[in-house]
Amino acid sequence: MEEIRRIGVFTSGGDAPGMNACIRAVVRTAIAHDLEVVGIRRGYAGMIEGDFVEMDGRSVSNILQLGGTILKSARSKAFMTPEGRAKAAEQLRKAGIDALVAIGGDGTFRGAAVFYEEHHIPIVGCPGTIDNDLFGTDETIGFDTAMNTAIQNIDRIRDTADAHDRLFLVEVMGRDAGFIALNCGIGSGAEMVLIPETFTDIEEIKERILSLMSAQSRSSIVVVAEGDEHGGATQIAQDLREDPAFAKIDLRVCILGHTQRGGSPTARDRVLASRLGSAAVEALLQGHTNVMVGVVNGEIKLTPLKHVYSRKKTIDYELLKLTQLLG
Amino acid sequence: MEEIRRIGVFTSGGDAPGMNACIRAVVRTAIAHDLEVVGIRRGYAGMIEGDFVEMDGRSVSNILQLGGTILKSARSKAFMTPEGRAKAAEQLRKAGIDALVAIGGDGTFRGAAVFYEEHHIPIVGCPGTIDNDLFGTDETIGFDTAMNTAIQNIDRIRDTADAHDRLFLVEVMGRDAGFIALNCGIGSGAEMVLIPETFTDIEEIKERILSLMSAQSRSSIVVVAEGDEHGGATQIAQDLREDPAFAKIDLRVCILGHTQRGGSPTARDRVLASRLGSAAVEALLQGHTNVMVGVVNGEIKLTPLKHVYSRKKTIDYELLKLTQLLG
Amino acid sequence: MEEIRRIGVFTSGGDAPGMNACIRAVVRTAIAHDLEVVGIRRGYAGMIEGDFVEMDGRSVSNILQLGGTILKSARSKAFMTPEGRAKAAEQLRKAGIDALVAIGGDGTFRGAAVFYEEHHIPIVGCPGTIDNDLFGTDETIGFDTAMNTAIQNIDRIRDTADAHDRLFLVEVMGRDAGFIALNCGIGSGAEMVLIPETFTDIEEIKERILSLMSAQSRSSIVVVAEGDEHGGATQIAQDLREDPAFAKIDLRVCILGHTQRGGSPTARDRVLASRLGSAAVEALLQGHTNVMVGVVNGEIKLTPLKHVYSRKKTIDYELLKLTQLLG
Amino acid sequence: MEEIRRIGVFTSGGDAPGMNACIRAVVRTAIAHDLEVVGIRRGYAGMIEGDFVEMDGRSVSNILQLGGTILKSARSKAFMTPEGRAKAAEQLRKAGIDALVAIGGDGTFRGAAVFYEEHHIPIVGCPGTIDNDLFGTDETIGFDTAMNTAIQNIDRIRDTADAHDRLFLVEVMGRDAGFIALNCGIGSGAEMVLIPETFTDIEEIKERILSLMSAQSRSSIVVVAEGDEHGGATQIAQDLREDPAFAKIDLRVCILGHTQRGGSPTARDRVLASRLGSAAVEALLQGHTNVMVGVVNGEIKLTPLKHVYSRKKTIDYELLKLTQLLG
Repeated sequence: MEEIRRIGVFTSGGDAPGMNACIRAVVRTAIAHDLEVVGIRRGYAGMIEGDFVEMDGRSVSNILQLGGTILKSARSKAFMTPEGRAKAAEQLRKAGIDALVAIGGDGTFRGAAVFYEEHHIPIVGCPGTIDNDLFGTDETIGFDTAMNTAIQNIDRIRDTADAHDRLFLVEVMGRDAGFIALNCGIGSGAEMVLIPETFTDIEEIKERILSLMSAQSRSSIVVVAEGDEHGGATQIAQDLREDPAFAKIDLRVCILGHTQRGGSPTARDRVLASRLGSAAVEALLQGHTNVMVGVVNGEIKLTPLKHVYSRKKTIDYELLKLTQLLG
Repeated sequence: MEEIRRIGVFTSGGDAPGMNACIRAVVRTAIAHDLEVVGIRRGYAGMIEGDFVEMDGRSVSNILQLGGTILKSARSKAFMTPEGRAKAAEQLRKAGIDALVAIGGDGTFRGAAVFYEEHHIPIVGCPGTIDNDLFGTDETIGFDTAMNTAIQNIDRIRDTADAHDRLFLVEVMGRDAGFIALNCGIGSGAEMVLIPETFTDIEEIKERILSLMSAQSRSSIVVVAEGDEHGGATQIAQDLREDPAFAKIDLRVCILGHTQRGGSPTARDRVLASRLGSAAVEALLQGHTNVMVGVVNGEIKLTPLKHVYSRKKTIDYELLKLTQLLG
Repeated sequence: MEEIRRIGVFTSGGDAPGMNACIRAVVRTAIAHDLEVVGIRRGYAGMIEGDFVEMDGRSVSNILQLGGTILKSARSKAFMTPEGRAKAAEQLRKAGIDALVAIGGDGTFRGAAVFYEEHHIPIVGCPGTIDNDLFGTDETIGFDTAMNTAIQNIDRIRDTADAHDRLFLVEVMGRDAGFIALNCGIGSGAEMVLIPETFTDIEEIKERILSLMSAQSRSSIVVVAEGDEHGGATQIAQDLREDPAFAKIDLRVCILGHTQRGGSPTARDRVLASRLGSAAVEALLQGHTNVMVGVVNGEIKLTPLKHVYSRKKTIDYELLKLTQLLG
Repeated sequence: MEEIRRIGVFTSGGDAPGMNACIRAVVRTAIAHDLEVVGIRRGYAGMIEGDFVEMDGRSVSNILQLGGTILKSARSKAFMTPEGRAKAAEQLRKAGIDALVAIGGDGTFRGAAVFYEEHHIPIVGCPGTIDNDLFGTDETIGFDTAMNTAIQNIDRIRDTADAHDRLFLVEVMGRDAGFIALNCGIGSGAEMVLIPETFTDIEEIKERILSLMSAQSRSSIVVVAEGDEHGGATQIAQDLREDPAFAKIDLRVCILGHTQRGGSPTARDRVLASRLGSAAVEALLQGHTNVMVGVVNGEIKLTPLKHVYSRKKTIDYELLKLTQLLG
């Protein structure tokens, strides 16, 4: 392996709070090791276009606490073609970039793995996605912030639900996984949680809601993952409304949507992002490539990119039971 | 007028942050004047049913900072009938309630005015609604909190908009008025604000968005009041998407919905609610009835209920100009 | 008066949330009027040193929501001398700056007035200070945010006070004025508020606290303005502790200090800062100088700088009564 | 072992956010197992006095999100004596309480262990303390919230530090341990972190601060744990000020104090508290006693109380290195 002197860092896929803290850690750790750092703007799209910016210690001052990503993110169809990736490799070589740190999710790492196979530029990934659905790390950068934002909004909805004895279906993010929904359900004291990982039995749900609402004439909140196989909060609301038994129930839908994605990262996301960004640079320097850095049981751990996107991280079924016990 | 010895307090219409602070001020001020206080639960519906609870100084401890309303709120069709109102008056008389403080909005005060005409129980209103659309007060209880909540969520959306160079249409509350939208637009640095009070010229909007997005390849946020006469954010998004010029623009809709309604009240809403709740009791004791207490130019002012719901509070056109200047 | 083509903007004195929103409004309004804008860094100190930076519309993107001031602030002893001011005027002339917008407080405006007398460079002030103690405006930029931050922290302290049945003395900012303390007292449901504007009778305070704590064995919070003439929270705590009657009371002091100064501005501060920054430029263009723009009863109003720092803004005694009634 | 039919739950020691969520989980899990639950108010003090309250599912509604503890907490000297403990045991037997869940820290568990030795009433502990300094669990209830509160306040201080190029010494909680300081240091991008676990070399600190401040004329934040062996932020400030080299540096101290203790718990603390409260009841039902439930590497784990207070949990030295690398 050639010596690494100059690394490129980029963010890709949906933005997640903590991405900036991660960029900062990559840049500062690299500088502490006398490396040069180049910021690649707009992910793979910017890589193909050579949209590069030199980074020094000052360029990442005061970004730790910012949501979003100062390097921006974008989708790139061109990078899905061999020609696009060849162009990207050429741009990196022209700019003297020896190695890469990729901050993103599933799709980012699929691209990274193919790119490494073809062009042999060492690449290490950092898990940056609010969905927490990546194998190889207990938590992804952005997950903790997204949960807290969602829960703060559900707390507000609870005030209204209680004031009016209403039923609210609150849809949270999670296209393929119920991590956000499950934790938000417990954290907001939701009466029920519907996630893609479990079968949503609409008749059973109706029964349980009716029993909750009639017995106590109180409010109920059902947290629904957007990717629930039954079809999300809007679909469930429609099913409930078609049932005459729900005629008297004041039912509302609230889709939290993009409010969950941005915002200043929580303490935990800042620390996690700092650790992972720093570890990614160390991993590159130790000769690793084609791996993602993660935190497993409190320790930094490297996982082959291939495993990250081919294996499935499972939810904690103890938490699922807890929602039923406490809701 | 008979002497007032025992007053009832209730919240009605949509809940608003600060309603609890207002209840607390009513109860504590009444007690300081040696009055008894009864909480009427679920607004006019509870009044008809006699759903009453005795209140003392301790019963309002530690509620100042809570969103929603501990007395709950509800709609009542029965109260729209003379029979319903007669029943309510009977319940009040049975419980020895001499006078009322009503915390709510437009609809609450229409009901209150009719009720007073028919049953002569003195009633004073406190403006509690997030919409700020009540004549007779510069600000309503809950407005400041709703704006801050909305702006915090729009700040988060801005992170994502910037990261991905996207256009977001963000819908905020305001069925009949643009107060929330206008202030949130300025406060979030929105590129455009669409409100019911002004004509929404879709062609002009398209032109301006295209010029903003192309010139600078940057993000844009358009804040839309739910009651915009053109039809809300979803309708506007549809119109934009039908135009081929928008094919390349990554456009998203986010409807803030019920996240704007609850939550711990801001400093301003707590102080406002405390002043108004206290002033309502003082007004009753001074023999006023059929009026709403408000704050106009920093001073407590009484306005006949009839004016509150028949006159229109206008937005500040200086603010509208400001959105165009700064956006 | 000569035509204004190029204006300088600076922040001075203690930083306040909303200063950046104000800078943004100055810059964008100036550009809309085809003016050039120069940022003067570090207040009068930077003016003397010629620490200038050109500002365009993009240079104030995404600063609306940031606390602190991107132009920084500093104290300048040199500016208190005629020589210092002459040097500053020379720097401004060299840089082609025709007029100034000064964002700051009392001290800033004293300096500005003298400077204008001597050097005749038009100057308009914007009230930026968390203390709200400026004559000529109902509210200063930063006041609303500081109150909300303080109240959020006092809410947290209330949790602990309640859990342990403690007495907390919480000191908030306000060296000369009780605006923050008074509003925070009402907003946090404090049992007592001590401010510089009123005599602090320590024996009366003891009596009231003892009666509150013994009667109900409950928690109490006393909000103290740092500038209370009796000497702040630490002094009052010492006096209480010397009294044997307080031996059994678990008394704690918490000084909120600099946590109150920074942070993302509230909705209200953002709107206020935007209005005032814009109005300052308009005032300069209309030929005004040596005045401060303020908002009085909802309207923009100009007040001679001399009045701002020589007249006293008084607290609202209705609010003071309210703390006694509700606490 | 006798069958458990009725359990008592109490909070003891300093309050921590999430204690209420934990109480709720204890009560609801117990009810799901057909147990009765008694709330013991004010910890061991209330146990001795028989200050008990029956709890049902409704009594813990809507407390999940509240800071502090609805059962209150207190210190008890009487419980440190055999007579006091005998009285407590008698009260429990009289009330028919078969087993206990104790939510608290170090001191709480020392008391619990002795109590069990003497009176054989089964007891299981839940780790509730913001300090995170308990052996047997990766995280304690309240730690995550305290960190987030501290970091939000440090973010605000950073605004002012940057605006004025100041040095701030910020003291955070942690009498014996640097967990809060270390994580807050990384999470706030502090330039330096001083904790009890490491030697504070004042000369080295001076040198590093001077080099940071002079090289870049920028702001610096030093996070100091209150229990730093050198003496806390006030002592360090004094040492720095005595050095003439610091004459020109604008140095401020801010002690976050009790603002760190209360507040609505974060998502993570709510989920943790729910899991632990539920697990404590399950552990009792499975016949465990004299143990604390904790979460270690994501799994519920039981640790003998004796180990909890006799063994030391060590900080993560990787994090310490990170503060030096990134600060």
